[in-house]
Amino acid sequence: MKWIEGGVCAAKGFMAAGVSGGLKSPGKLDMAMVLSETDTAAAAVFTKNVVQAAPIGVSKAHLEDGSARAVIINSGNANACAPDGEKNAQAMCDLTAKTLGIPPEAVIVASTGVIGQTLTPQMPNIASGIEKLAEALTTDGSTQAAQAIMTTDTAVKECALETELCGVVVHIGGIAKGSGMIHPNMGTMLAFITTDVAVDAQLLQKALKTSVQRSFNRISVDGDTSTNDTCLVMAGGAAGNAPITDENAAYQAFEDALTEICKSLARAIAADGEGAGHLITCHVEGAATEESAETIGKAVVSSSLFKAAIFGADANWGRVLCAMGYAGEDFDPDKVSVSFQSAAGTITVCENGRGLNFDEDLAKKILTEADVMVEIQMGEGAASCTCWGCDLTYEYVKINGDYRS
Amino acid sequence: MKWIEGGVCAAKGFMAAGVSGGLKSPGKLDMAMVLSETDTAAAAVFTKNVVQAAPIGVSKAHLEDGSARAVIINSGNANACAPDGEKNAQAMCDLTAKTLGIPPEAVIVASTGVIGQTLTPQMPNIASGIEKLAEALTTDGSTQAAQAIMTTDTAVKECALETELCGVVVHIGGIAKGSGMIHPNMGTMLAFITTDVAVDAQLLQKALKTSVQRSFNRISVDGDTSTNDTCLVMAGGAAGNAPITDENAAYQAFEDALTEICKSLARAIAADGEGAGHLITCHVEGAATEESAETIGKAVVSSSLFKAAIFGADANWGRVLCAMGYAGEDFDPDKVSVSFQSAAGTITVCENGRGLNFDEDLAKKILTEADVMVEIQMGEGAASCTCWGCDLTYEYVKINGDYRS
Repeated sequence: MKWIEGGVCAAKGFMAAGVSGGLKSPGKLDMAMVLSETDTAAAAVFTKNVVQAAPIGVSKAHLEDGSARAVIINSGNANACAPDGEKNAQAMCDLTAKTLGIPPEAVIVASTGVIGQTLTPQMPNIASGIEKLAEALTTDGSTQAAQAIMTTDTAVKECALETELCGVVVHIGGIAKGSGMIHPNMGTMLAFITTDVAVDAQLLQKALKTSVQRSFNRISVDGDTSTNDTCLVMAGGAAGNAPITDENAAYQAFEDALTEICKSLARAIAADGEGAGHLITCHVEGAATEESAETIGKAVVSSSLFKAAIFGADANWGRVLCAMGYAGEDFDPDKVSVSFQSAAGTITVCENGRGLNFDEDLAKKILTEADVMVEIQMGEGAASCTCWGCDLTYEYVKINGDYRS
Repeated sequence: MKWIEGGVCAAKGFMAAGVSGGLKSPGKLDMAMVLSETDTAAAAVFTKNVVQAAPIGVSKAHLEDGSARAVIINSGNANACAPDGEKNAQAMCDLTAKTLGIPPEAVIVASTGVIGQTLTPQMPNIASGIEKLAEALTTDGSTQAAQAIMTTDTAVKECALETELCGVVVHIGGIAKGSGMIHPNMGTMLAFITTDVAVDAQLLQKALKTSVQRSFNRISVDGDTSTNDTCLVMAGGAAGNAPITDENAAYQAFEDALTEICKSLARAIAADGEGAGHLITCHVEGAATEESAETIGKAVVSSSLFKAAIFGADANWGRVLCAMGYAGEDFDPDKVSVSFQSAAGTITVCENGRGLNFDEDLAKKILTEADVMVEIQMGEGAASCTCWGCDLTYEYVKINGDYRS
């Protein structure tokens, strides 16, 4: 398995583009398209929020047959809780289908931005944006597409890898956006993944579900689960592998590779959390079960108090214990040990549930790094899990104090 | 029912004091004591955090007989996850008992402050602080006691009321502290309530549980449930009412009055949330059940995004819908209406799940007030609930970026 360039276009048979459709300020990329040259097996997971954006319903219906050809995405407006939401989401599919000469049901639609404002006055812009996108499609359009789906994101999120399935070289790559309202639950923010692996649609859905559970569902920026979360994977089959139709070794290898892509994009989202200065990785070891490790790890990276402590490079491990304690899992606090780790070193601050005398200067140095890890040893069992989050900063408050203007 | 002065000393038979024991900076009040002149029926609820501070275990044991005479409290150190925690908590009870000439089991102990540091080096200070407290006890010591239990609190929290039970005038009053790590779950932060009502200990526990559920359990500052949450009520009986021994009209009147005291203290904690500039009251109406209204109201006042929007006086109602949607309750978003209200007026921003064109200037004016309300009409049923929270500010991040130093 090796990391390569190309993002959502790294897999054979896929093109992408990003253009300015005039939804955001002039010249800013705000519309993206991904197209497969052939039909693909397609699978997706969506937000579990009871309030769901209009594109979610339309995309779910279009994925019922387990296949897709194209994706159309806009940023700047979430098309959630907005008048004529479903009509406008459907219109985006119809316009894309007409322009590309494919059936509307082969088009998946997604939106991201402000909740509660109708897209209607922007539909003429969207129509001409779709035409521009169709003309701009190219096999090296991944970065532009990734840029066009950003909202408060400060970094482009794309990745790709190459691996072998039973001797055949295959590719998986994706783009994602997400910076605030990030606390995915069974769904995720926006992520679009493509692969040239030949794989049955039902197995693709299964692999995606597993991968998302181990990646996007283990990050948190602010505890808010979005109305628009969508993670889509399209598998075109151009790699020429023997199609994966049961859960054999090739399926497992594919699932592992897909999980790596999802983890890479999830980490990128956590690191680019709104206003974040630190990526926080929480590794929980010695848990009774993986579920318990995940619940506890996610509580730690979600704790406002712990996040603010990391902003201040303050080794306030009591907040780690506190968050573990209210996570909803039963465990013996007297068995817990906590360490902090980064490029600057490692320091153990708590053993058997009690504070150690530690070198505060070294701890500060360790936590001043941009990429910090809190390691928790629970002493309950053999299960482990890694979760990702970011610190809580002045900048987060500033960004969200007046997001709409 | 009328509000009166006197706080935790408003009920007949209670004295209190706050002194500087030298745990915080010199001269700062950091130890408090409450004493009843007779035995009281006593009841308490504690944090549900798996990680519990040492005083919680000691106090639980001392409350097993349903009675108490005195409370000893220190701030500046939470005595949680700390070596010799139980020994030191027990020693605080023993020293208090010896000084006051009462049994150790009649003493309830509580601590609040930094997690993970041992109290041992401070025990000589605590011993002399207890002697000072016993000398300082007075029937107008409530405010000093309330000051002595503050940590990051900026305002003293005390209240009291007078009411009649079957023609007999009775009093209930209390003090509380809490500003950060506030997201009570079946327990609460530190609150100490006294009354001169004569009431059976089991009924007192029942009334307290109901009152706490409707008050402290409906506030959130930052989503973090503390390791030290304690809410204690002591009923001395000096009012001379016919002792309440079953759930009659007098019980109901007592429970209502106790709930008012708890709500007043809970609101005060939310308004004094770390760094807060706004008290947010979320009133949910038309819910299917009270539980559903509570879950949804609490999700709204807990949402970092909504809290940051209120900091910016931004009527970003989409975040209200979003938080309602991930609360874990099922409902029809298309029936939801949202209004904002304050001393500056009322504005409806969403009706039937869709945004309205509203006067942004008026909305800004309404949300600039210190005391703002978001009113949610769900259109599902007849149940309602009120929850309280505060905005998320630069100051919250600053306070918690380096709390320990």
